[in-house]
Amino acid sequence: MPPDRISSLGEKKLISRIISRSASFFKPSELLGLGDDAALLDMGEEYLALTSDLLIESRHFPPTMSYQDMGWKTVTVNMSDLAAMGAALEGFILSMALPDLELESFDSLISGVLEACSYYGAPLIGGDTNEGDEIIMGGTAIGRVRKEFVMMKSGARPGDLIAVTGPLGLGAAGTELLLSGTDTAGFEAAVEKSLKPIARVEEASRMAKSGLVSSATDITDGLISELGELRDASGVGMRIHEVKLPVPPQVSEAASLLGVDPLELALYYGEDFELVFTAPPDAMDELSRIMEVHIIGEVIESPSIEMVDKHGDTYKLHVRGYEHLRP
Amino acid sequence: MPPDRISSLGEKKLISRIISRSASFFKPSELLGLGDDAALLDMGEEYLALTSDLLIESRHFPPTMSYQDMGWKTVTVNMSDLAAMGAALEGFILSMALPDLELESFDSLISGVLEACSYYGAPLIGGDTNEGDEIIMGGTAIGRVRKEFVMMKSGARPGDLIAVTGPLGLGAAGTELLLSGTDTAGFEAAVEKSLKPIARVEEASRMAKSGLVSSATDITDGLISELGELRDASGVGMRIHEVKLPVPPQVSEAASLLGVDPLELALYYGEDFELVFTAPPDAMDELSRIMEVHIIGEVIESPSIEMVDKHGDTYKLHVRGYEHLRP
Repeated sequence: MPPDRISSLGEKKLISRIISRSASFFKPSELLGLGDDAALLDMGEEYLALTSDLLIESRHFPPTMSYQDMGWKTVTVNMSDLAAMGAALEGFILSMALPDLELESFDSLISGVLEACSYYGAPLIGGDTNEGDEIIMGGTAIGRVRKEFVMMKSGARPGDLIAVTGPLGLGAAGTELLLSGTDTAGFEAAVEKSLKPIARVEEASRMAKSGLVSSATDITDGLISELGELRDASGVGMRIHEVKLPVPPQVSEAASLLGVDPLELALYYGEDFELVFTAPPDAMDELSRIMEVHIIGEVIESPSIEMVDKHGDTYKLHVRGYEHLRP
Repeated sequence: MPPDRISSLGEKKLISRIISRSASFFKPSELLGLGDDAALLDMGEEYLALTSDLLIESRHFPPTMSYQDMGWKTVTVNMSDLAAMGAALEGFILSMALPDLELESFDSLISGVLEACSYYGAPLIGGDTNEGDEIIMGGTAIGRVRKEFVMMKSGARPGDLIAVTGPLGLGAAGTELLLSGTDTAGFEAAVEKSLKPIARVEEASRMAKSGLVSSATDITDGLISELGELRDASGVGMRIHEVKLPVPPQVSEAASLLGVDPLELALYYGEDFELVFTAPPDAMDELSRIMEVHIIGEVIESPSIEMVDKHGDTYKLHVRGYEHLRP
């Protein structure tokens, strides 16, 4: 029998494997944020929140993406993870491996990083530069959050409503259009979302300070995958309604042009960088007065992810998404 | 004329370029640790110290290195940077890209990371896993240091003595022997230093708490390169004495076997993970009572790096070392 390879497990199981091995080395109190969007360090009244993401040119950057946008995206994916914990952004560290770029391309890459750091209000505070065969951008974002405001994946309770902060599937539609080489005229919003995504930092901050949210995460691996994360961490189930999903016309049009199901783009693709969160009905009502809220479903007891389709029929969804390290 | 490429500048000039561009986006107080071993965030009485290093299988891991040792080294290079600032180690974040490894190799890699985290007393608190064509290990280490104890590159003053915490050139000798495929019998210490380096965390902590050190850094790019860093940050010069350099016999023997100058291995190679630091003579005397100290020279006014050779002749050294992004 051939030996097992890591592709037979997939990313999420590999992470669980690392976490369970860590448990034999360290105390549970030292492993607070493991498996959540960001790591947490106990600093007394506050948590320090830290997250680290590695982006590889050939795998994470759509074709035609400019160097400037690669820099921007590297910062955005990290800020999005921090924001999803409710953390105020404090700084960014950039660790790169680069092929022998033209100096002008290098300057654009850095300028995208600095522009994004400045936009999110978190200075570039350090880094490391190496040679590599292709562009590898490693980012680490640091933030702080008062303990009572921290938003984890684990607080959802049956009866809570489920909501997202904005449209679903736009980033996916943009990326797929670019990958297919299709003319993108008329799909500017989708292409913009794919090439220059913006982390929902302002909304996350409002949510955190309101103290009204029971669980939250950012949508980087697709809505269903993230709902699966909230479910697993909270020990509940999730039911969403097809008619309530904020899927913009551009996504349906792109899907028909590409010959794919629009729900595939909206539910399983990710790259939207919207937040998905839960809160009790009254709290959700209050939240909708201070920010954009699209209610898409409710937390249930049975530990499944269910979809009520447009005909009113309910069926279970298989939790999958954009997962690395899959065959 | 062909466009300029980043190889025409080299790593250090690229970093300066990033720093000077940052200055137009952020306040100097926000950019405290830029260019030092670790980034610093002001937390009131303390600094939070953060560092991030990316290791790439084909470039940073000697041949025959085990997966376990790759994991160990990833943690060590980051802990060494933090220790050099005087920081107490608090946590580690691992961000990886991996090819489709056998599960057993993956487990060894993670076990090396966890073993090192446990050795340095800093739990693995988070991470990220991606697919890649080869092993890329991105590490971020987090620590804390009281403001009065922080050790920067910038405090060296003329008249201070220069010292290192241990032998020079061993890691270089080990790596070069492994690369050349030479029989390594009799070179166990060199090979061990190359495959399983240990960051000088305990010594760094004593140095920091003593308050006696005027500047410090860890030797990752070679002694002369690091002396150049201390010189540039402090606005002074450095003079070292050939006869005072702690170059063990194994390094000279390896050099003769490899047909290279032993000083090339001891001064320009790095990978030693010893600390180089400066302190006034009385302070150095006191430090030598609490830890291993090898005095190798003195800080001078004229901004050069000088070597007094074994015949008593003085000549200037060109600052070079193991620098990435050079043609």
